[in-house]
Amino acid sequence: MQNYKMLLQYDGSRYNGWQKQGNTKNTIQQKLEEILSQISQKETEVFGSGRTDAGTHAWGQVANFHMQWQGSTNGLFLKINEALPEDIALLSLQKVPPRFHSRLQATAKTYVYRIWNSVIPAVFERKYVFVDKTPLDTEQMKRAAAYLLGEHDFKNFSSVKKTKKSTIRFLYHIEVVKKENEIQLIFTANGFLYNMVRILSGTLIEVGEGKRSAESIKEIFAAKSREAAGFTAPAKGLALAEVFYDKRW
Amino acid sequence: MQNYKMLLQYDGSRYNGWQKQGNTKNTIQQKLEEILSQISQKETEVFGSGRTDAGTHAWGQVANFHMQWQGSTNGLFLKINEALPEDIALLSLQKVPPRFHSRLQATAKTYVYRIWNSVIPAVFERKYVFVDKTPLDTEQMKRAAAYLLGEHDFKNFSSVKKTKKSTIRFLYHIEVVKKENEIQLIFTANGFLYNMVRILSGTLIEVGEGKRSAESIKEIFAAKSREAAGFTAPAKGLALAEVFYDKRW
Repeated sequence: MQNYKMLLQYDGSRYNGWQKQGNTKNTIQQKLEEILSQISQKETEVFGSGRTDAGTHAWGQVANFHMQWQGSTNGLFLKINEALPEDIALLSLQKVPPRFHSRLQATAKTYVYRIWNSVIPAVFERKYVFVDKTPLDTEQMKRAAAYLLGEHDFKNFSSVKKTKKSTIRFLYHIEVVKKENEIQLIFTANGFLYNMVRILSGTLIEVGEGKRSAESIKEIFAAKSREAAGFTAPAKGLALAEVFYDKRW
Repeated sequence: MQNYKMLLQYDGSRYNGWQKQGNTKNTIQQKLEEILSQISQKETEVFGSGRTDAGTHAWGQVANFHMQWQGSTNGLFLKINEALPEDIALLSLQKVPPRFHSRLQATAKTYVYRIWNSVIPAVFERKYVFVDKTPLDTEQMKRAAAYLLGEHDFKNFSSVKKTKKSTIRFLYHIEVVKKENEIQLIFTANGFLYNMVRILSGTLIEVGEGKRSAESIKEIFAAKSREAAGFTAPAKGLALAEVFYDKRW
């Protein structure tokens, strides 16, 4: 069985997120498994680098699967793209060693949260941005972002229920980029907790609106509960931009 | 009555084009007239710089209307945007002299035809591009474009029926721009005949595919009928990018 690594792009608008689970219908993972099982005529499992929420998009999700395939890799690449619906694309397909697992070997991820900060409607980007008509103070947002950087327990910035797993993550980099009517929040970390990017984004948006101070970030880390942090920004503004691996993969 | 000039953007996907006519429902013009008549409590007519076909988009359509309005221009601007559906945006609104008419005073227009030239699906741009998986030879397309430049009778590049009106237009500029998976055809002229940009684009695409030579453009001008030219490229790839006026407007 050959192990294949996929680089995927999708518009998450009409999907219930990446992960199939229980009775959840219409997920990206499920769609891919259907297509790959159909092509190989054998039940095929797809391993994603991580879940994306219902309505969240991906510019560069990574997943892998094992398949017995006689033809060329490029032939398989074309076959998969022909079978995919128009809101999911396979950008590239490559053979990888058997040990490669897209989630276990991921070293870091970048998520981008897109805010449309204008009274002028976002005609062409409307499905991919969160609209906030209140002018945001990006200088304050940058100050707040600086408090988030580094290794912290991000439990209060997540919707994780009680867990034995560690909620400590290392946030390597945050950028607050303003370009015309749009503000992008770009987060790179070694991993993200459930809803973490959306709560980080909601919190930074509240700072930008002047509803809370940049310094209040410190209090959130010290607080006892998730209520200390900002709102969970809507899924449609979020995109998984990139998943990073060691050079050998 | 004050004359107002609007700069508009729209995703034409779900509209029957710009122009209301006879029983045609659901046009952009009609939608705007409904909203403006509602705001002013008086039948209000909207004059566009020109029609766009069903399914064609606009990045910068211009239109004007006359209205008795007591409040500020910015107040009116916000009111219109709030009433508009999310696939139409008013980018700017300004007072103009009574004599201004968005069609009669337009001196030139730029249209952009977007071709997605890849076997990788265009996930996020899929509603705004024409997909052609055959690799296009942009050098030949540029050579062909050069034959189109200047003043010509473009009758054979249009779906105009017999008409007494002139079918001579001046094509000032054509660009063939390749950027990653996309090729854009950018046309600027003093005016365009019905379906002219889509037929020019279809013809250039056929040149890019090697189905016809760059030199065949000369034969199309000399031919007796529209059949000499290429196919009418689909409306969804087309956008009205800009309408030009004298400085005084």
